Amino acid sequence: MDPAYRPSLMEKGTGGSGVLPFAGSDLVLSPSQWSSHVVGKISSWIDLDSEDEILRMDSETTLRQEVAWASHLSLQACLLPAPKGTSCANYARCVHQILLGLNNMQLWLRIPLLKTDDDSMDVNSNSLVDSWELWNSFRMLCEHHSQLSIALDVLSSLPSANSLGRWFGESVRAAIIDTDSFLTNARGYPCLSKRHQKLITEFFNRSVQIVISGKPVHSLPKGSADLAANNNDSNFDGVHRHPLRSYLDYVGYLYQRMDPLPEQERFELGYRDFLQSPLQPLMDNLEAQTYETFEKDAVKYIQYQRAICKALQDRVPDGKASMMTTVLMVVGAGRGPLVRASLQASEETGRKLKIYAVEKNPNAVVTLHSLVKLEGWENIVTIVSSDMRYWDAPEKADILVSELLGSFGDNELSPECLDGAERFLKDDGISIPSSYTSFIQPITASKLYNDVKSHKDVVHFETAYVVKLHNVARLAPSQPVFTFTHPNRSTNKSNQRYMKLQFDIPSETGSSMVHGFAGYFDATLYKDIHLGIEPTTATPNMFSWFSIFFPLRTPVVVHPGSSLEVHFWRCCGPAKVWYEWCITSPSPSSIQNSNGRSYWVGL
Amino acid sequence: MDPAYRPSLMEKGTGGSGVLPFAGSDLVLSPSQWSSHVVGKISSWIDLDSEDEILRMDSETTLRQEVAWASHLSLQACLLPAPKGTSCANYARCVHQILLGLNNMQLWLRIPLLKTDDDSMDVNSNSLVDSWELWNSFRMLCEHHSQLSIALDVLSSLPSANSLGRWFGESVRAAIIDTDSFLTNARGYPCLSKRHQKLITEFFNRSVQIVISGKPVHSLPKGSADLAANNNDSNFDGVHRHPLRSYLDYVGYLYQRMDPLPEQERFELGYRDFLQSPLQPLMDNLEAQTYETFEKDAVKYIQYQRAICKALQDRVPDGKASMMTTVLMVVGAGRGPLVRASLQASEETGRKLKIYAVEKNPNAVVTLHSLVKLEGWENIVTIVSSDMRYWDAPEKADILVSELLGSFGDNELSPECLDGAERFLKDDGISIPSSYTSFIQPITASKLYNDVKSHKDVVHFETAYVVKLHNVARLAPSQPVFTFTHPNRSTNKSNQRYMKLQFDIPSETGSSMVHGFAGYFDATLYKDIHLGIEPTTATPNMFSWFSIFFPLRTPVVVHPGSSLEVHFWRCCGPAKVWYEWCITSPSPSSIQNSNGRSYWVGL
Repeated sequence: MDPAYRPSLMEKGTGGSGVLPFAGSDLVLSPSQWSSHVVGKISSWIDLDSEDEILRMDSETTLRQEVAWASHLSLQACLLPAPKGTSCANYARCVHQILLGLNNMQLWLRIPLLKTDDDSMDVNSNSLVDSWELWNSFRMLCEHHSQLSIALDVLSSLPSANSLGRWFGESVRAAIIDTDSFLTNARGYPCLSKRHQKLITEFFNRSVQIVISGKPVHSLPKGSADLAANNNDSNFDGVHRHPLRSYLDYVGYLYQRMDPLPEQERFELGYRDFLQSPLQPLMDNLEAQTYETFEKDAVKYIQYQRAICKALQDRVPDGKASMMTTVLMVVGAGRGPLVRASLQASEETGRKLKIYAVEKNPNAVVTLHSLVKLEGWENIVTIVSSDMRYWDAPEKADILVSELLGSFGDNELSPECLDGAERFLKDDGISIPSSYTSFIQPITASKLYNDVKSHKDVVHFETAYVVKLHNVARLAPSQPVFTFTHPNRSTNKSNQRYMKLQFDIPSETGSSMVHGFAGYFDATLYKDIHLGIEPTTATPNMFSWFSIFFPLRTPVVVHPGSSLEVHFWRCCGPAKVWYEWCITSPSPSSIQNSNGRSYWVGL
Repeated sequence: MDPAYRPSLMEKGTGGSGVLPFAGSDLVLSPSQWSSHVVGKISSWIDLDSEDEILRMDSETTLRQEVAWASHLSLQACLLPAPKGTSCANYARCVHQILLGLNNMQLWLRIPLLKTDDDSMDVNSNSLVDSWELWNSFRMLCEHHSQLSIALDVLSSLPSANSLGRWFGESVRAAIIDTDSFLTNARGYPCLSKRHQKLITEFFNRSVQIVISGKPVHSLPKGSADLAANNNDSNFDGVHRHPLRSYLDYVGYLYQRMDPLPEQERFELGYRDFLQSPLQPLMDNLEAQTYETFEKDAVKYIQYQRAICKALQDRVPDGKASMMTTVLMVVGAGRGPLVRASLQASEETGRKLKIYAVEKNPNAVVTLHSLVKLEGWENIVTIVSSDMRYWDAPEKADILVSELLGSFGDNELSPECLDGAERFLKDDGISIPSSYTSFIQPITASKLYNDVKSHKDVVHFETAYVVKLHNVARLAPSQPVFTFTHPNRSTNKSNQRYMKLQFDIPSETGSSMVHGFAGYFDATLYKDIHLGIEPTTATPNMFSWFSIFFPLRTPVVVHPGSSLEVHFWRCCGPAKVWYEWCITSPSPSSIQNSNGRSYWVGL
């Protein structure tokens, strides 16, 4: 704790028996207090990349000693000082060695939140222009170790919004705000700029701890800051106010002021950044619980009902409503929600319906039968327990309604199923949905990458995951990938697809890390009625689909000025369908999931 | 074989039972002829990255059919046409899928040997300037698959020597020379330019097959080319000369003209590009066979003898030669070659010696004793069976002679051993060697990389290998890494080292792939007498040391204009010494072998 302490000055004369220069002992606090309330702070003078070899050696010794002490106390984390220059290889080497032998403790590397907007093309420039680069080097040198996180030093001026956004995909654990970064409001109290407020709110949303640091620089009207000599905040109210109390109060106020989470977001809290394997509803039969969850998605069925209404009105003119009966087939009827939506559309439009409910899952068919009986739909609804691809229909349909879409649109094999079902759609019949398109966008997703990496195999890197994306940075607008249109009247019925996309990351973002791609879909149910999860056009309050995530085996850094070229394939074999993907720019990757060796959807 | 054949035109009407349009059957040749004499040639019209989807699909179908046919015939290789444009992702995807399901057959991708010297900085330029980039993309997309190789099309003009050099580190299997690339000599016969001749010789040296392609364009004096109609080379002499015979004869002449391999190279043929684990002579005891091999290295002992002569002459003036006895200790005497060299130096200079031969391997000590008896050295040589680090010497030495060097100098722990032995060296005593320095240089070494990769673990990527480098491209001059000086009189006795190096690859080389680093050493035995394997200063005809190879887990492409920054650490623990290494430019890698987790040398 003595800032003048240097191992190289102490060694002589002590004969190896010298007392370590730590103030205090581990008995000052109880073990649970140490582990839950204290973050260790490593001496800030250390500089492992100094030109001075003695200082370098001293720094390494001190770093090791202090981390060992923190580890002995079972602290949850240690704060490491920011690298002193633009070079950090020796610091990273030492931290990496420590990480490999560490218990559960986290190491939080301090990084100033700094990026000059000067787009200097001089790559040989030695001055630090973007502290994200420094972090990126450090964590890459440390093999993306999951116990290495960031404590961001928030300064009085902030980089551009795009540049800030990158940090939301990184493992930021704390934001340290110096009292110097606070403004003064009309009443003399500390406050923050609008942009700082927004940033702090973003941090709250991502469970980033806010730390106030520095000396009180605002003299408060009441003069309570005069008592600053007492550095102990054990006495919350009354005379002994903590000298930084007013800063803390302001940050607390920002927290209180936040909008409460909408119900859907609260429901989804537990799923944030949690990787799930996509469903295989064609190969496997869904469970009752899964049906239960999806059936609760009112918004989705309202959209379907609206689409069916429009289709019925187009199919049967008002004048003929009482005479004509429309044959509507729900293919993949499940436990009946689309049957209900169809009947409600029939009622709403006054069009008469004959419904076939086709379902391959015999367990769902049981529920369907009891539903039809319960609701008294026997005269209208015929239940067919069959796979739509092989059903021999007794007549052709006017309208084919299905909900076979996955998070990536075609990834639950809607195209293959509907290819089969369209045999019994009239030539002028309508398919709801009439088309769907998948979308991808490059993201920084350090947490997801580490979760995939923790499996230590190729298979998990070649799998797409359903995930509620939260701590991610979306680096460029999403772009369409594959589109399927129904009914498909083309002569070439192949459902294979190949798409090459180029993403341009805004240059003011700075360099960014692409851990993989977020995938979405948007479906046109009928005419202007759509349904989707692509962020800019997403149907509000719909919760049936999270995004999909395609990881990259080797995450790629894209520098300003270079673009990201991505290739996606949808491949079809006799028994399975799969995706392959790769990048070819800024540098070529390997092709992932070749032959569907790791991840596929069974036909 | 019909160039007009397209799967999309054939499918209609055949009902799936159409005969494949292959000429000939597999009965034309015997199975062993197919597999040893024939390389398949895939239809050259295929273009899997065409904008035309039909052509793309046809190309994929044809490629799969033809490779399947070649595979059915157990051909050793198939020649794939060069990618048509600068984009090759879909071609690579298809080839990668095929490779993953292939038997032992190789796929040779044709690549024109082409690089314009225009150092255009326009990265968005779409024109192909460097075909190596195309190859690099293709193989990276195919995950560096070991069955994917190159057939280089040698054109009439050649790129710069540095640029050509890159290919020597790649898996080039064939060089195809078009008859158009031949010149005509004074007698009317085809010949090649000096630069082409040199290139062909290099190819011969690397077992690259030479293929002559095209039509005969030289009308020979004898007119034998007039018989060109006969395309069958079954009749070697007489009337039916093959129309390309004169080209083949010329290439044969180039082969005949090559210098025969020196004896040492012949001896080392079997070790070329073969990875060996470095010796651990300190932790393990060497075997008799190993001593036998190393003792044969006459050049090495001549250098030692020369150094000892100089040291003796410096130590004892001519006038005092008969009076003074020099105490010389051979530390790590093995089976005695340095004892012999010392005695020969004593004889040569007329200086009197008292020799201690210190050896820790009790098995070698047995041989030492019988050698001393056999040679009658009992009065001069004292044999000490002890580890030099712990020996309690009865007197101090004037000269300490050791040969503890590994391929990377200090990697067999010479510094640690000599730290122990220097206890019994007089203050003004001499150590032979007096210093040694390790060197590294970045290399392309596709074969070595694939051999390391084939183990499918991290451990092998974090190991340094002893290897006779042959099929490698040395991308920049080597640079010194760590130096140790003996005796070491400094107060800081640490043998830890850290070195940061920057390599600039000549810009005319073009982009290059760094698979890792070749390591060497150079030792100063005494004054101007040195010994080493650093290529530019290597001691000739010495075979005790091959190079060392430090692989990179993720090979890195260095583009012209950016430099390669490398960090090497020598780390010392209580029981082991190890290296860690990483690169930080052009992009940061992970630090390899942290804590010596994969590769270390035991103390």
